[in-house]
Amino acid sequence: MSNLVISQFMKTAAAADSREEVILNATDRLLARYGYKKMTIDDLAKEAGIGKGTVYLHFKSKEDVVLSHVDRIVRRLLDRQRAIIESDDAPADKLRQMLLLRVMFRFDSVQHYTESISEVLRDLRTGLLERRQRWFEEEAKVFAVVLREGQRAGEFRRHDALPTARTLIFATNSLLPFSLSTQELGKRREVEQVASRIAELVLEGLVSR
Amino acid sequence: MSNLVISQFMKTAAAADSREEVILNATDRLLARYGYKKMTIDDLAKEAGIGKGTVYLHFKSKEDVVLSHVDRIVRRLLDRQRAIIESDDAPADKLRQMLLLRVMFRFDSVQHYTESISEVLRDLRTGLLERRQRWFEEEAKVFAVVLREGQRAGEFRRHDALPTARTLIFATNSLLPFSLSTQELGKRREVEQVASRIAELVLEGLVSR
Repeated sequence: MSNLVISQFMKTAAAADSREEVILNATDRLLARYGYKKMTIDDLAKEAGIGKGTVYLHFKSKEDVVLSHVDRIVRRLLDRQRAIIESDDAPADKLRQMLLLRVMFRFDSVQHYTESISEVLRDLRTGLLERRQRWFEEEAKVFAVVLREGQRAGEFRRHDALPTARTLIFATNSLLPFSLSTQELGKRREVEQVASRIAELVLEGLVSR
Repeated sequence: MSNLVISQFMKTAAAADSREEVILNATDRLLARYGYKKMTIDDLAKEAGIGKGTVYLHFKSKEDVVLSHVDRIVRRLLDRQRAIIESDDAPADKLRQMLLLRVMFRFDSVQHYTESISEVLRDLRTGLLERRQRWFEEEAKVFAVVLREGQRAGEFRRHDALPTARTLIFATNSLLPFSLSTQELGKRREVEQVASRIAELVLEGLVSR
């Protein structure tokens, strides 16, 4: 390919990317305003300021848009987790921050539509449960990095890093929006407190003495 | 009340109890056979060998029957937990068994209707989430008993027993049927392995050294 063609191709890809972003931003606003059931692809196109056909170029269905919206939340979370890994904090501090973040980042990402989230979680239960395994495996890999770092530094006991990382994921999964009631989703402070307590308890189990 | 009246009253209460049991046993079989959506109160009465009116004497609705069926699972689990507490095992062993049991007992109680369980969990999401808080609090109280026992024996570090018990509940809640996909519900061994790993990790954090 000539440079001109490559440059054209990259521009198109970037435009598609940003169009997806625009659609997902509109999804976030409409979930807050209407909820999942009431929201239509028509509303979405209107809110995003594009044609309905363009929405279908990027997403198969309303379910696909909303699941991709959750995908984006997890992608952004993983970026934040990686930034913590890059910091100069001690491995135990990084791990504590990462465990808290995986709960609170998701919490904060959906809290502005507390009411409609139950609807999403009920109606998309199957789709969410399927994607979840991939998300958790991605997260486990990121957690394994910091576990290995702590082991090299002699700060953590010897464990097989990836299985331990998966255990940490499961030990905090009950605090993700999927498992919380509307009432619990209204109590940020309580959720944060339980997440901190789990983090402290598992950290006690991980540090070498 | 005369002894005769009391005795009559107790017989009536026992009969009501056993009729409830019969209805809940029928519920269990029908959930396995038809699933939640298809099951009707008519089917239930027929399966239990009683009149439809009798079902309504004990339960308000189909939702009420199924939630009471889950109530019974939790009640039976709590009986088993208390039996572990009564045993002569060391507190750490009791705690390990209790953590594993809270996951596996529920798993085994619903596994014969793996397919329809997703339906129940979707359609009864709100009702389940509301009852759950009461169940978990009951369980936390039972866990607190063994935590205090371990502290008195000098086996566990000093913690406020009830908050720590709640933390243990949350740390294993993601393995309850409510949070598992149909696929995960088919893999008993994997669920058991993750539950064991969480138990080991938190136990490392609890034991005093």
